[in-house]
Amino acid sequence: MAWFRLLAPKLQEVKLVSGDLAVSIGGSPRAMVKDERGVWSLTVGPIAPGIYDYTFEVDGLRITDPSSPDVFGNRRGSRGYVEVPGAEGAPRQDEWRDFPHGVVSMHWYVSPAAGGGRRRVHVYTPPDYGTDPSRRYPVLYLLHGAGDNDSHWVLLGRANVIADNLVAYGEAEPMIIVMPHGHIDVPAVEGEDRTARRRRTTVAFEKDLLETVIPLIETTYRVRRGREHRAMVGLSMGGGQSLHVGLRNVDKFAWVGAFSAAVGEMDETLSALATDESGLRLLWIAIGSDDSLMDRNRSFIASLKEHGIRHEYRETEGAHQWAVWRLYLGEFMPRLFR
Amino acid sequence: MAWFRLLAPKLQEVKLVSGDLAVSIGGSPRAMVKDERGVWSLTVGPIAPGIYDYTFEVDGLRITDPSSPDVFGNRRGSRGYVEVPGAEGAPRQDEWRDFPHGVVSMHWYVSPAAGGGRRRVHVYTPPDYGTDPSRRYPVLYLLHGAGDNDSHWVLLGRANVIADNLVAYGEAEPMIIVMPHGHIDVPAVEGEDRTARRRRTTVAFEKDLLETVIPLIETTYRVRRGREHRAMVGLSMGGGQSLHVGLRNVDKFAWVGAFSAAVGEMDETLSALATDESGLRLLWIAIGSDDSLMDRNRSFIASLKEHGIRHEYRETEGAHQWAVWRLYLGEFMPRLFR
Repeated sequence: MAWFRLLAPKLQEVKLVSGDLAVSIGGSPRAMVKDERGVWSLTVGPIAPGIYDYTFEVDGLRITDPSSPDVFGNRRGSRGYVEVPGAEGAPRQDEWRDFPHGVVSMHWYVSPAAGGGRRRVHVYTPPDYGTDPSRRYPVLYLLHGAGDNDSHWVLLGRANVIADNLVAYGEAEPMIIVMPHGHIDVPAVEGEDRTARRRRTTVAFEKDLLETVIPLIETTYRVRRGREHRAMVGLSMGGGQSLHVGLRNVDKFAWVGAFSAAVGEMDETLSALATDESGLRLLWIAIGSDDSLMDRNRSFIASLKEHGIRHEYRETEGAHQWAVWRLYLGEFMPRLFR
Repeated sequence: MAWFRLLAPKLQEVKLVSGDLAVSIGGSPRAMVKDERGVWSLTVGPIAPGIYDYTFEVDGLRITDPSSPDVFGNRRGSRGYVEVPGAEGAPRQDEWRDFPHGVVSMHWYVSPAAGGGRRRVHVYTPPDYGTDPSRRYPVLYLLHGAGDNDSHWVLLGRANVIADNLVAYGEAEPMIIVMPHGHIDVPAVEGEDRTARRRRTTVAFEKDLLETVIPLIETTYRVRRGREHRAMVGLSMGGGQSLHVGLRNVDKFAWVGAFSAAVGEMDETLSALATDESGLRLLWIAIGSDDSLMDRNRSFIASLKEHGIRHEYRETEGAHQWAVWRLYLGEFMPRLFR
C-alpha cells in the first residue's frame, strides 16, 4: 500500500499522476479527495514491490511532491518517487541488502567531442575493488535515456544495488560499470534536418566515448582491456546509441545490448558487420509489450535475421519504464564476461 | 537578472518564495503577475552572482519549481535553485572553471554506532590524486546542517569546486574532503528530554565518525595519518558537532572550525581542554550578522576567552544561508595543513 497526502486547503482539484502506477490507481491521473482540514489524500494498493515515479496535478499544474525528499531532476523538470519494499524474505533484486557495497564516483572531464565542454561520468566499482589491489575488472558501459543524465542509472535504476546483489550471489562477474552522459551539444548547421542532426549527435557521442571516456576509465581504474572485457548497453535513446556505437565497433565491444531501444536505421551498419568474424559474443535486445517503440524493435529484429546476425530477443510485460530496465539489467549482467 | 515563469492558468495567486533572494525581490514571498495566457512571471535583478534556492507558493501551497531540473531533496521536502554566474573575467570562487577537477565518490557502509544500519559518506579527492600514486593527503571532515545530508556540501555547497579552484591557484593544500552523514538514529529512551536525546545523538555521531568513518577513509585512501593532518568543520548543526567532537578529541584533530554553528553547552569540554598542551593549530569560528544563532556564538566566544583558548572569530554580512558557508569554506581551507 502507498498513502499519498497533500495539505492544500485553497486548491480546487488535486490528482495523482503516475504512469508507473496507472494500473494500481485505476488510470492516471486519478482524483484525490479533500477532507475538512484541507488534506487531499489517496490510498493505493496493494502495489507490487518496486520504485514508482509520480507527480501531483493541482488545479491543472503538475508539481513535484513538495514534502518528499525523494525527488529527481531530469530534462523535463522534476518528479518524486516512492519505493515499495519487497515482502519479508523476498527482497527486490534492486533493493538494498546487507551485502558488501560498491562505490559510485563522479568524474568531470573536458571533452574535445563536445567542443571542449565539461562533462560528467558516473563510475561504479564493485565491492572488492578496494580490497583486492591486484585484480583487474571488465567494464560495462551503461547508457541512459533521453529524459535523463549520467546520474539516473544510480538514482532511479539502482544499477549499483543490482550489481552488489548479483555479485554477492555469484550470479554476475564483479565488473566496473561506467555511466556516461548521453546528451551532447553539436553546433547547429543551417538547413540541416532533425535526422541529420541526430546522426551528428550520435557521432559526437561515439567520439566522446571512444576517444575520451574509455581512455579516462582505462588510465584511472584497474580494468581488463580489449573487446572481450568491454560491454555496452543502454535504455531507450541509450539503447539506440549502444546499438549504433557497439555494432560499428565490434573490435572494441564483444557484448552489446539494448533495452526498449529507440533504434534507428541500421542497415548500413548491419551489412558491414561480418558476422562470422565479428566475434560478437552477445547481442541482447529486450522490450516491454506495451512499449510504443515495439514496432521499431521488431523491424530491427527482422533486419538482424535477414543479415544472419546472431542475437537474443526478449519481449516482456511492461511499458517504457524503469521497472523493465532494472529487470533487464539484472538479466543482462549475468550473461557478460563468461 | 533572473526570470521566473510558471504556466498555471487556473491558479488564483502565485508568489516567489526565497529567503536567499529576499533583498533582491523586495521581501519574500513576493507576488508574481499573471498574463492573459496564464503565465505567472517575475523578473528579479540585478542579482549578485551566486546560487539561490527558491520555491513557488501557489494558492497557499509551497511547491518546487516543476519545470526546472535543478532541484534537491532535504529533510524538509524539496526545493529548486537558480545559479547566477560571475561577471566576465570575475568568476565566483564556487563556480566551475577550466581547472583540473577532483573526483567525488559515494561509499555505503555498515555503522555499529547506528545499530548496524547502512550509512553513506561522500568523499572528494583532489585533481592530482589519480595521477600521483605516491602522494599522501591530509583530510578535512566537512559536516552538513540539520536540513541536509551528506550530498549537500557538493550539491549546494560546491565544496569540490571551491577546492578545485583553491588548489589550482595554489591557495590551499590539496586535501581529501570527507562529507559524512550527520543524522543518526538512536533508540528512544522513555522519559528522556530533547536535550538529553540530542546529546546521545551527538555521541553516536562521534562514535560513527571516529570508529567507522575515519578507519574506512584511512584504509581506502592514501591519507596522512595523525592529528596534524586531520581537520574538521561543519555548518549549523554540523558546526555544533564539529566543536563538540573536535574539541573533545584534539589528539585526533589539530584544526577545528564552525560555520554559523548551533553550538551547545561546551563548558565541560572547554575546561578539559588544556590549551597550552592541546596543540590545537587552529580554532576558527564564523557567523553572519543576520543569523539567529548569533547570540549563542557570541556566548561561546566569551567562553573561549574566559578559558584562555586561542581562536579566530569572524563576523560577516549574511544570514543562515549557503552563501556565507561557501565563503567561509573558501577562507578556512587555505588556513589548513600549513
